[in-house]
Amino acid sequence: MLLDHSAQGVFPIAVTPFLPDGRVDITSIDRMTDFYLAAGATGLTILGIMGEAHKLEPEESVQIVEQIVARAPVPVIVGVSSPGFAAMRALARTAMDLGAAGVMIAPPPSLRTDDQIVGYYGQAVEMIGDDIPFVIQDYPLTLTVVMTPKVIRSIVQNHPSCVMLKHEDWPGLEKISALRGFEADGSMRSISILTGNGGLFLDFEVERGADGAMTGYAFPEMLVDVVKAIKAGDRDAAHNMFDAHLPLVRYEQQANIGLAVRKYVLQKRGAIAHDAQRKPGSAISKTAAAEIEYLLSRVARFDSRAAI
Amino acid sequence: MLLDHSAQGVFPIAVTPFLPDGRVDITSIDRMTDFYLAAGATGLTILGIMGEAHKLEPEESVQIVEQIVARAPVPVIVGVSSPGFAAMRALARTAMDLGAAGVMIAPPPSLRTDDQIVGYYGQAVEMIGDDIPFVIQDYPLTLTVVMTPKVIRSIVQNHPSCVMLKHEDWPGLEKISALRGFEADGSMRSISILTGNGGLFLDFEVERGADGAMTGYAFPEMLVDVVKAIKAGDRDAAHNMFDAHLPLVRYEQQANIGLAVRKYVLQKRGAIAHDAQRKPGSAISKTAAAEIEYLLSRVARFDSRAAI
Amino acid sequence: MLLDHSAQGVFPIAVTPFLPDGRVDITSIDRMTDFYLAAGATGLTILGIMGEAHKLEPEESVQIVEQIVARAPVPVIVGVSSPGFAAMRALARTAMDLGAAGVMIAPPPSLRTDDQIVGYYGQAVEMIGDDIPFVIQDYPLTLTVVMTPKVIRSIVQNHPSCVMLKHEDWPGLEKISALRGFEADGSMRSISILTGNGGLFLDFEVERGADGAMTGYAFPEMLVDVVKAIKAGDRDAAHNMFDAHLPLVRYEQQANIGLAVRKYVLQKRGAIAHDAQRKPGSAISKTAAAEIEYLLSRVARFDSRAAI
Amino acid sequence: MLLDHSAQGVFPIAVTPFLPDGRVDITSIDRMTDFYLAAGATGLTILGIMGEAHKLEPEESVQIVEQIVARAPVPVIVGVSSPGFAAMRALARTAMDLGAAGVMIAPPPSLRTDDQIVGYYGQAVEMIGDDIPFVIQDYPLTLTVVMTPKVIRSIVQNHPSCVMLKHEDWPGLEKISALRGFEADGSMRSISILTGNGGLFLDFEVERGADGAMTGYAFPEMLVDVVKAIKAGDRDAAHNMFDAHLPLVRYEQQANIGLAVRKYVLQKRGAIAHDAQRKPGSAISKTAAAEIEYLLSRVARFDSRAAI
Repeated sequence: MLLDHSAQGVFPIAVTPFLPDGRVDITSIDRMTDFYLAAGATGLTILGIMGEAHKLEPEESVQIVEQIVARAPVPVIVGVSSPGFAAMRALARTAMDLGAAGVMIAPPPSLRTDDQIVGYYGQAVEMIGDDIPFVIQDYPLTLTVVMTPKVIRSIVQNHPSCVMLKHEDWPGLEKISALRGFEADGSMRSISILTGNGGLFLDFEVERGADGAMTGYAFPEMLVDVVKAIKAGDRDAAHNMFDAHLPLVRYEQQANIGLAVRKYVLQKRGAIAHDAQRKPGSAISKTAAAEIEYLLSRVARFDSRAAI
Repeated sequence: MLLDHSAQGVFPIAVTPFLPDGRVDITSIDRMTDFYLAAGATGLTILGIMGEAHKLEPEESVQIVEQIVARAPVPVIVGVSSPGFAAMRALARTAMDLGAAGVMIAPPPSLRTDDQIVGYYGQAVEMIGDDIPFVIQDYPLTLTVVMTPKVIRSIVQNHPSCVMLKHEDWPGLEKISALRGFEADGSMRSISILTGNGGLFLDFEVERGADGAMTGYAFPEMLVDVVKAIKAGDRDAAHNMFDAHLPLVRYEQQANIGLAVRKYVLQKRGAIAHDAQRKPGSAISKTAAAEIEYLLSRVARFDSRAAI
Repeated sequence: MLLDHSAQGVFPIAVTPFLPDGRVDITSIDRMTDFYLAAGATGLTILGIMGEAHKLEPEESVQIVEQIVARAPVPVIVGVSSPGFAAMRALARTAMDLGAAGVMIAPPPSLRTDDQIVGYYGQAVEMIGDDIPFVIQDYPLTLTVVMTPKVIRSIVQNHPSCVMLKHEDWPGLEKISALRGFEADGSMRSISILTGNGGLFLDFEVERGADGAMTGYAFPEMLVDVVKAIKAGDRDAAHNMFDAHLPLVRYEQQANIGLAVRKYVLQKRGAIAHDAQRKPGSAISKTAAAEIEYLLSRVARFDSRAAI
Repeated sequence: MLLDHSAQGVFPIAVTPFLPDGRVDITSIDRMTDFYLAAGATGLTILGIMGEAHKLEPEESVQIVEQIVARAPVPVIVGVSSPGFAAMRALARTAMDLGAAGVMIAPPPSLRTDDQIVGYYGQAVEMIGDDIPFVIQDYPLTLTVVMTPKVIRSIVQNHPSCVMLKHEDWPGLEKISALRGFEADGSMRSISILTGNGGLFLDFEVERGADGAMTGYAFPEMLVDVVKAIKAGDRDAAHNMFDAHLPLVRYEQQANIGLAVRKYVLQKRGAIAHDAQRKPGSAISKTAAAEIEYLLSRVARFDSRAAI
């Protein structure tokens, strides 16, 4: 089951569950996987930035891939970004051998010019092999690498194995329109576009042509509903659902503590046993926890799934 | 009417109206000032980053200060941030002579360490004079200067003329709590805290102890209502009002094009004659304009002021 | 006397002389101009970053342009970089009216992509007019904007009024070779390339094809000698002269305090009356001053002009 | 043989030798170790940024530590910087078990405030254990983290296991003076200070009180000679030796391609068999190689060790 350009729906960015002592919480991994599937996920993305991938040892990463791929009957995308191509290749090949559907590659923060970015993806594909479907991770806010639509097009055209864009530019609505325009004018072949940023702009992103979401909001059900409603042409229903969650989406989308908020809610929902992060991590205060509870109670007025 | 630590309510960050050919739109300035006052503003902040201050010639800045101060019977804070202290001093002294209530100073992006930041404000106060009430502008997302609560406390304690913090950290809720904690434990004298970020976290910011908002959301009436409701203890009403606007608040809070969205709505509301920006500026597409219209129509279901 | 692509030799980046109280030191301006001319300057660049241009009021900038252009019988390039195009246009047109030979434009630090950079220069030329010869300032270390040779070529090809590159990339030797390669293969018309970085790589930059130096080293005589010797084919003599000064060149090329070192030496050499900087500025310690004296004494063993 | 505050002399930053196909060049490791020892190294630092440590797999890192520690009868410092504390702890404990003398820890680029930096080292020491001597790596140009002397003092005073500063600030002379001043006034216990930046300021750094160098210049003999001469009070001899190498030191100290220059010279000198870097790496052009050859020939006029 290899990833291709027809992928759509919601690929949650999975967290990595940890025990309070910092070890990987093996037991929670299956529970979490089932949680995402029950929420309507059409795929899964693991070992991303929000998955604390950079804090994992290589053998831990492999075990997590193995466990989730074995459990999930949907395509699993594995984040393989690394400062060195040797580690990227090792994880990518191993993940595919274990049954992953594709890999996701973020550009290193040192890249600046268009040519550097295009060249980097060229080197990466050469290293991992052109038989592995890959996703471009476009996340300038965190990575400080800005990719124009033309740069993305160059990567897509250079590499048949590029099948998806994880779109996380901000603001990024015009970027989606520009890329779909390239497809319409024949200058770029079709790719799947899934969007991030915690879902903060999902409503309009799908209207602009995105195929769905790839983000970690703790209620993936909402992401699923919104994508479906817009694809079904039910604009107002989509926005009603979206707006009901927006206060919490917004709260979760805070730099530094966003992951702590997300894990708090996921734990509360039973998706993971602990909201622990591996060090160095962030935590939320009691006041913040009370704010989240209040937000959940308000979301629950419109969406009973938030009544926990 | 000098600014002091008791300032509260909503000080909108005023835009600067331009004609399509790039000249300052003198006629719109009074109209805009009246608009903000009618919306319930308890003060005004002009010549900020969103006011395109860096694109103005010194004599233009002075004329705008003069015109707005003469028109507005509320305290006017003037942004005087500048790469050189000579220009900062000149504008600060002139603005105060014209009747401004105080000035706002942002740290230059080159500052990194705690001592550099504290030292910079020391130099700035020495240059403009310690008789001018000033506001610390804390805006790490754009300025890349991160001020801890302790650094802010040092500046406050070093300078009696420091009376307010323009709080625009993200996430920043804990920072507000920390500063109010300093006041409670007696280690810092009381200051006014007004918050920015387009209002995206205003609901909880005021609950955490902020005195109000200093931001440019195109419906300052909502900011006014939310601050009042929370101060009156009417939490649910505050959040209801806030949540009704949040989809538009969020849309306006996009990097680069946020000002274009804001000016579009302000023009539509009649606050300014043109949504033009002085070059280099940003603009919105037809699709974006349609999205804003849709958002306005949805806000209008709860707040008739958005029915334009 | 308009600047064109045939410019060569040494265009010192002039400092701006200040009195200890922060006012512009009018008296020193002529003296400094004469000093640069006596050193063999074939042109002058004023109001650059090292000229503390961002700390000047517009009328001060104009006065300095007027005074130096009237004094110097060589082409004078005026730095007109500004956050707003209105100020850029005003200074550019005034400077040219006063007799300047051309202007220099740096990209604002917010630019990231190739298209943004090319687009910015397009807007700038539209604003100042296509009749003013201009210099691209390429200084990624300070401005964080990285221009590839292809981007520079696009700007050159788009704008006949682009006649020179102030090259200050680091490392930048291959960039010079690439640009001269574009000229050789006919894909870019010829431009003048003058190099910066305090002269730290001048020896090889000229060997790679640069036409000379545009930098502020306090012994412009050395820059002149090195450029002449290499152009005359006397490689060893060039390097001998260069190496004799390199310990001081290196010392002057320190971030933050470099300008203080430079002004210290210029004052000592009689080029300016005071080594004062306008605030916020930097200063050197007594130990640093003693280190500079020692370095001067060592340079003087090979170059008697350093025996002060 | 644990590292302590009395360490001095030259601890070269060792490169990691690779074969042209990207595998670690095991054979060259002993040769390189012997080379550094023959050059007069009093210690070695391995797995640093210039050692391409971020491109190594964990098991490769361990093997390199094992091989070099077994070979070198001097203290070996192991770079253990990592985005996650788990990996840092694992490598640190393993390295010490294998006989390393201490570890070096760089702050992650995301740190901004004084408290964040001090807090990070607190967490790191908690994780690796307070029985492992460690070195603070202060390298703002690359890491973008600026540590004031006071921050360094806090770390030193908080952690008895902090025994050394790898000083690589630029400019950094006043920082050395400030730290030595703290020791003199009794506010900080004594630490070893070794300096980096390719040796570009070594002459004055040692005069300011540094104990030696920790950098990778391809002629560590020069670094050894300069440190010895200054410690012996022979200032002019030290500067004569230093100045003879400075043109090459400067050439090697270019961002991005510096490591390629260094490996080229090390290969030429027989220290390693190949100048290959693991991908993504940099390379030098033929013209650059010729420039290096010319520089070597010029250094050789004063230092016969450069006559290769």
